[in-house]
Parts: sequence; C-alpha cells; structure tokens
Amino acid sequence: MTEFSEWFHNILEEAEIIDQRYPVKGMHVWMPHGFRIRKNTLNILKRILDRDHEEVLFPLLVPEDELAKEAIHVKGFEDEVYWVTHGGLSKLQRKLALRPTSETVMYPMFALWVRSHTDLPMRFYQIVNTFRYETKHTRPLIRVREITTFKEAHTIHATADEAEEQVERAIEIYREFFDSLGIPYLITKRPPWDKFPGSDYTMAFDTLMPDGKTLQIGTVHNLGQTFARTFEIKFENPEGEHEYVHQTCYGLSDRVIASVIAVHGDESGLCLPPEVAAHQVVIVPVIFKKAADEVMEACRDLRDSLGDAGFRVHLDDRDLRAGRKYYEWEMRGVPLRVEIGPRDLENNSAVISRRDTGEKITADLDGIQDTLRDLMNDILENLRNRAWERMESEIREAGTIEEARNIIEEKRGIISFMWCGDEECGMDVEEKVRVDILGIQEGGSGKCMNCGRDAPYRAYLARTY
Amino acid sequence: MTEFSEWFHNILEEAEIIDQRYPVKGMHVWMPHGFRIRKNTLNILKRILDRDHEEVLFPLLVPEDELAKEAIHVKGFEDEVYWVTHGGLSKLQRKLALRPTSETVMYPMFALWVRSHTDLPMRFYQIVNTFRYETKHTRPLIRVREITTFKEAHTIHATADEAEEQVERAIEIYREFFDSLGIPYLITKRPPWDKFPGSDYTMAFDTLMPDGKTLQIGTVHNLGQTFARTFEIKFENPEGEHEYVHQTCYGLSDRVIASVIAVHGDESGLCLPPEVAAHQVVIVPVIFKKAADEVMEACRDLRDSLGDAGFRVHLDDRDLRAGRKYYEWEMRGVPLRVEIGPRDLENNSAVISRRDTGEKITADLDGIQDTLRDLMNDILENLRNRAWERMESEIREAGTIEEARNIIEEKRGIISFMWCGDEECGMDVEEKVRVDILGIQEGGSGKCMNCGRDAPYRAYLARTY
Repeated sequence: MTEFSEWFHNILEEAEIIDQRYPVKGMHVWMPHGFRIRKNTLNILKRILDRDHEEVLFPLLVPEDELAKEAIHVKGFEDEVYWVTHGGLSKLQRKLALRPTSETVMYPMFALWVRSHTDLPMRFYQIVNTFRYETKHTRPLIRVREITTFKEAHTIHATADEAEEQVERAIEIYREFFDSLGIPYLITKRPPWDKFPGSDYTMAFDTLMPDGKTLQIGTVHNLGQTFARTFEIKFENPEGEHEYVHQTCYGLSDRVIASVIAVHGDESGLCLPPEVAAHQVVIVPVIFKKAADEVMEACRDLRDSLGDAGFRVHLDDRDLRAGRKYYEWEMRGVPLRVEIGPRDLENNSAVISRRDTGEKITADLDGIQDTLRDLMNDILENLRNRAWERMESEIREAGTIEEARNIIEEKRGIISFMWCGDEECGMDVEEKVRVDILGIQEGGSGKCMNCGRDAPYRAYLARTY
Repeated sequence: MTEFSEWFHNILEEAEIIDQRYPVKGMHVWMPHGFRIRKNTLNILKRILDRDHEEVLFPLLVPEDELAKEAIHVKGFEDEVYWVTHGGLSKLQRKLALRPTSETVMYPMFALWVRSHTDLPMRFYQIVNTFRYETKHTRPLIRVREITTFKEAHTIHATADEAEEQVERAIEIYREFFDSLGIPYLITKRPPWDKFPGSDYTMAFDTLMPDGKTLQIGTVHNLGQTFARTFEIKFENPEGEHEYVHQTCYGLSDRVIASVIAVHGDESGLCLPPEVAAHQVVIVPVIFKKAADEVMEACRDLRDSLGDAGFRVHLDDRDLRAGRKYYEWEMRGVPLRVEIGPRDLENNSAVISRRDTGEKITADLDGIQDTLRDLMNDILENLRNRAWERMESEIREAGTIEEARNIIEEKRGIISFMWCGDEECGMDVEEKVRVDILGIQEGGSGKCMNCGRDAPYRAYLARTY
C-alpha cells in the first residue's frame, strides 16, 4: 500500500464515510455509513468512560478575555483560533473564539463548582466539535479545521498523587479503548517542547500508519496546578484551609476513526472490527430458479433471528450479481458474510466468509448465532494481533545517528534509541535525523545515541502526521 | 405557580440541569444531571427517527455566498447570524457563518447526492448546536444564543404529493415523541407571515406553559421546490428528464426539555416521565439500630436486581436524615422511591412512593419489578392526561374581539376563534387583541370573529414565548 494517501482518500469516498466536497477547506460531512461507524466507536468509548466520569456539555464560544487568561496555553493556540466578531449586522463588544479545546471554557465554571475536599475527585467528559485554523495541508479525519469528534475528559483532584494516579487510569482507559478497536499503540511521554501548552507533562498514544508515519491518536495531560492558579480553582481541605486543585485532561479525536480505517484496511477496502462495523453480518441469498422462495425465506428468517439476538444484520436481496454484492460489502468492511443457496438449505447449513482472512466456513444453521459470535471475537483478535505485529516489526533499534538516518530513508517506521534526555541534545537529534522525537519511556540504561552520555531513557523517532 | 419565570430559573439551578453562569449571554452549561435527562430524551427521539431516517453530521460553518444564495431564507436570518471573520491573526477571505439552521449547509451537498429517482426518497437528520444572535431577553432552554440541542430532519422527494405525505409523517413522528414525554400540543398551520423563511408552509406544535404563554416546541416545513431551484437539486425521472426535487424539513430544540420541566414540574420541583428521568427508582434504606445490616443488604440486593433488569436505579446510602433525602429526590423528579425498613423486611415488602401523586404503595419484594414497571407506565399516563386536561381547560372560545381581549387579560391561555383567513384581517386581530395568531386548522365553518365574513378556519391566539 505505497499510495496510502490516495487509498485513504478513495476509501473515504467509496465506502461513504466522509464527503470531502464541502465548500470549506478542512471541513467535511459525515455520511450515513461513516456516521454509524463513528457512533459505534463512540459507544465503546462512552461505555468505558461512563463507569466513573460524568458526561456534560459546555458552550462552543469562549470570550477573548477567558481564553487569554492562561498565557502559556493561549500562546499555544493563538495562531489557530477562529474568531467570531459579529452578531447579525453589529460588531460584538467582545470577540468570541470557537473552542480549540475547552480548558478555558470549563475551568471558570469549575472554580464555581469545586467547594470542599468532599466534592473531589470530579471527572467529566464531553464529545464536541472543536476548531483549529490549520495552515498545513488538511486531510479528512487526520488534519482538519473542524474536528467533529473531540472527546475531552477533565478531572479535578485534591492532591498531586491523585492527579498522577488519574494519568495512569486514563492511560488504562485508552488502552482498553484501543484494544477494543484492535489498534496498536506506542505510549510515550512527549518531550518538553512538545507537551500540551500549560501542562506539566503529556503522555501520548501514537500508532503507525501504512505509509510509515506515526499518527497521534490520544493524549493524557497532567496539568498540575497551573490552570487552578489561573482560574482560581480551590477547595477547602479537612483542616479548613483553601488549596488549589490538581488537574488532568485527556483527549481523543476523529483520528481514532482514521486509524481504524487505515490500520485494518486493505486492497479490498475497509476491514472493520465487528463492534464498530455498521453491519456485522450481511446475508446474501444465492438464488437459482430452483428453490428461490425457500432460500429467500430462510434468509429472512435468519435475518430476523440474528436481529432479535442483537446482531447488526442486513439482508441484501437486491437483484444484482452475487459478485457485485461481495465486492461492495467487502469494500465496506462488513466482518461476516453469510451465503445461503439451495444446497445449503438441503444440509440446513450456510457458508460464512470472513472479511479479515477470506476464509470460508460451512456452518450449521441451528447453532449459527454462536458460530458468528465466536467468529466476531476471533476477527477482533486477529485484527489486533496482525496490527500489533505489523507495528512492532516496524520499530527498529538505532545505535548511531547514521543508522537512524538510514532506517528512516530506507524503511521508514519507528526508530528506538537510547537518549540522555537533554533538551538541546534532543533537538540536535531531530535536526540530524530530520524526524520528530515522539517521546520517551523511563527505565532504560545505556549511552545516548547522539552525545554518548549516560542515557536513562528509551526514546522513539518517527515521521509524524 | 404564578411566578413561573422564577420557578423555572431556580429549578434549573437546584436540580442541576443547566448552569446559567457561563460568562456569555444566552449560552449555558449542561450539568451532569441535565445532560442525562437530555440524553434520555434524545434516545427516544433517535429510536423513532432511526426507523426510516439516516443520521448524518454536517459542518458548523457556512460560507457567506452559500448562505446568501436563497434570498428569502437569508433575509429571515441575517439579523441573527454570528460571523467568523478571522482565523488566527489573519482575516478570512470569505466570512463564515455559524449555522442558524442547516439548509444552506446541506443542500449544496444534496445537489451532489441526488442523481436518480431510484435514490429517492432520502431522509436525513442530525442533532447539533446552532446559533442565533438573539436580541430579545434570553432564557435557558427557551430563548438562547447557542441552541445546544437542535434536531433537524431534511427529506428529499420526487413529487409534491410525497413531500406532502412526509409532512404528515413528520407530524406523526412528533406526536409519538411528545406523547412519550406526556407533553400536550396544539398543531396548527402557521399564518403566512410566520412561516419558515423559504418554505411553502409551516406546521407547528405549541404547548402551554404554566404562565399561560405558549411555547413553540416543534415545526414541520414543506419547502416545495424553492431550495431545489436555488441549489439545483435535480433528479432524473424514469423518462430520463431532469426535475427539481421536493423537500421538507422539521426541527426540535432544547425547548422540548424546557417543556418537560415546565409542564410536569410542581412546587416540589421536577416531575419527570420515567423514560426521561436520570434515575427511575431511588432506594432509601430506613435504618434504625435494629436490623441495620439486613436492611442495607436487602437494599443492595434490590438495587442489583433492578439494575440487571434494566432499571436506572440508585441506592441512596448516604448518612443523612430520610427527610432530606426525600426532599432531594422529589426535587430532582425521580418517578419512584422505594423505602425498605426492618418491618418491611419482616413482611418481605417495601413501600413505594409515586412522585407524581405522592401515593404510597406497599409492594411484595418478590414481584416488585412488575409493580415498578406498571407504576412507571401509570405515571407517564397520569402525567400525560393531567397535562392535556390542563392545556385543554386553558383553550377558550371567543366570538368577538372584546371577548378575546377579556380572556387574555383575565385568564391568559389560548383563544380559539373563527377566522376568514385574510392576511390583513389576521394582522388586525393580532393588533386588537395584542397577541399572536398561532395558526389555523382547516375544516371549521362560521363567521370571522373580526370581519364577519365566512370563516373556513379555526384559528388560535395566545401570548407566545
């Protein structure tokens, strides 16, 4: 899949995920099929978050003065904020920004909501659209001006330890989520020059795209007390004193869906994890003149019983050649296709085709629900294993700058190396290899690939989206 | 409830529906409890729409030239559109409007999507935020600048008859939806001067608020071919000729939730239909020293079994006086409260209290799921009947302008009268009675209350929100 960019553009169109023809750059339309995949994906996320987070919804528009309060934060966003300046024919007294993210929207309210240590911790999330005036080349779901699916969680804690612990919990949440999608990830701590503006530090999930570039698919930020001081978010501790809270936030975007499409897709089109697929099972009657009515009836019965059992099932009874139908459903990534013809009926069986492997299985109609359910589990596991293996095979160790350069030029992928952790040295590495340091993991030992000093960190380099 | 306005403001705050302190006029925060009610309400709506509509998601921002294309339409909105003029520090080449509604966002795309008569009908909906720069007094959920919950459906048809039929179907959809919420409605055809800008005609649902003013809670528009001509939306008919499509659209907003709160609420606070309530059942242990552990255990068992059976249930095991708990849960509108104390346990029973009537029922613990389910059905029916009776008792017939005036001054509510249908005469009625004509229903006969001519319409007058 050398021409990933073209493949991605085409599959979004052909599988009716996104319409890219909306007449504003970087803004796109979710078509019905894409919307279903998006909804199913978000349902997994909500199910996980709803265990101990509360869903809320904050306004889109941020007054200029609130946005400007946290200086480091606003500096990170000022070049890419859209401004509303007029209401009707009159100029607004205060400009309003379209949220690029919601710290400055939520935190003035948190200052009103937090009172006592008994209120804490608080964990909120919302799923909204956010806006970035991207000047770089835009690409649907990956680099857009309207992020239509921005899941942002914001938590408030009494102590630094609890905030630290929440960072770990958020990482576990994202692990569980990406595992449910079969998306492999590399978790690192971003280098200081690449952390979220205003945070103490940023933990990031990156995955590898088919073109060998990494895509940031999730981030978790420990905000420390920076925003608490700016927005005066305090609580009364058990001793009756007022302290600033500790905060974290963590986010995901449309890129999750980009990664599902890109990581699992193949030359035939989408290949979707069953929980995400708009249809999990499509039934195709194999009709000849003989027994046509019986076959159709058996197909309808199967559709109804699968539907009642909670499968997302579709019966394709269009008057088209079977090959055309197979092509379409494969392209749309439906995990399982069930064919029933006269001979199958005689044997009370059906033929099941797996989208991920192409394998065909003859199954007894009586126990077919269990068979399909088992196959769906297998498919997720297979997709996940396949994707992890692929990513891991693309992570290569470099001992010298020269080696790193060669790997990037010849093989792309991700480079693993030992690093001293010094900022200047890191910048130097980025300049010499001409790719970005994704981040670090603690706990290694060795010599820095660049400067030769003691290196406590394993770090990663890659071309990034 | 004379001071409805104050009551409404207070209950939104006390029941934690909406935080009204966000620092931009007319924009508010959905708090966790409010968000759940909103989500449950939308789930009912989605369940109904998903039968034959496809959910989609279009961009927020409309280019100025697209917005301006349909002249009558834009004239209806130009005073209240928010404009984005800058991205980062640079001025945009084309101003972008925040959608006030999405005809001009969707219809350029529909022109690309519709090809053949076999594509039709198409029925889409989305649930999004929309923006109106309201200059009138704003009020949460009723008149806002960010409509956070705008459900808009848009349909495309081959013939005028099919569009007409879709208007009827949309009315049925809204009937079913409002019946599920127990909200009474008056359905009328809006007078021509009050129809949706660009439509052929508008059908509207109004309900009566406790202060005697009506609230528009839903509208259905037959757009004819106006937008089809403006945006060049054509299909190829079976004869191979290209024809303009016929369109409808229909919408609901946050006002649905305002009406649920206002219509069913009472002096004790919210009173929610069970399908909408964040918690349907709250369990309160009645603890004395004796048998405290057994009571708690029975409460936990009940919570778990109800939860497993799909009830939204909460066990309030806080160390607070029972009275305080009752007050809180009543205020938050929980339909059913279950109390279990030592004596109840001895009898293997529990005491159930209905929020809507205050009635107490002693129920056997063994069959309690059925009892609770039956009670929830009863509650919805009771809320619906009560609300319909109240609204119908506030619709009064006027035979003369004088009578109409008296009714409005002394009793408020809705006035029913016979009308000739002449626009000038209608304007004259509005001026004389100083309230608005909501709309008409066909099929009456008599003399016009104002001009005495033959009157084919029954019309309605009311103070409106």
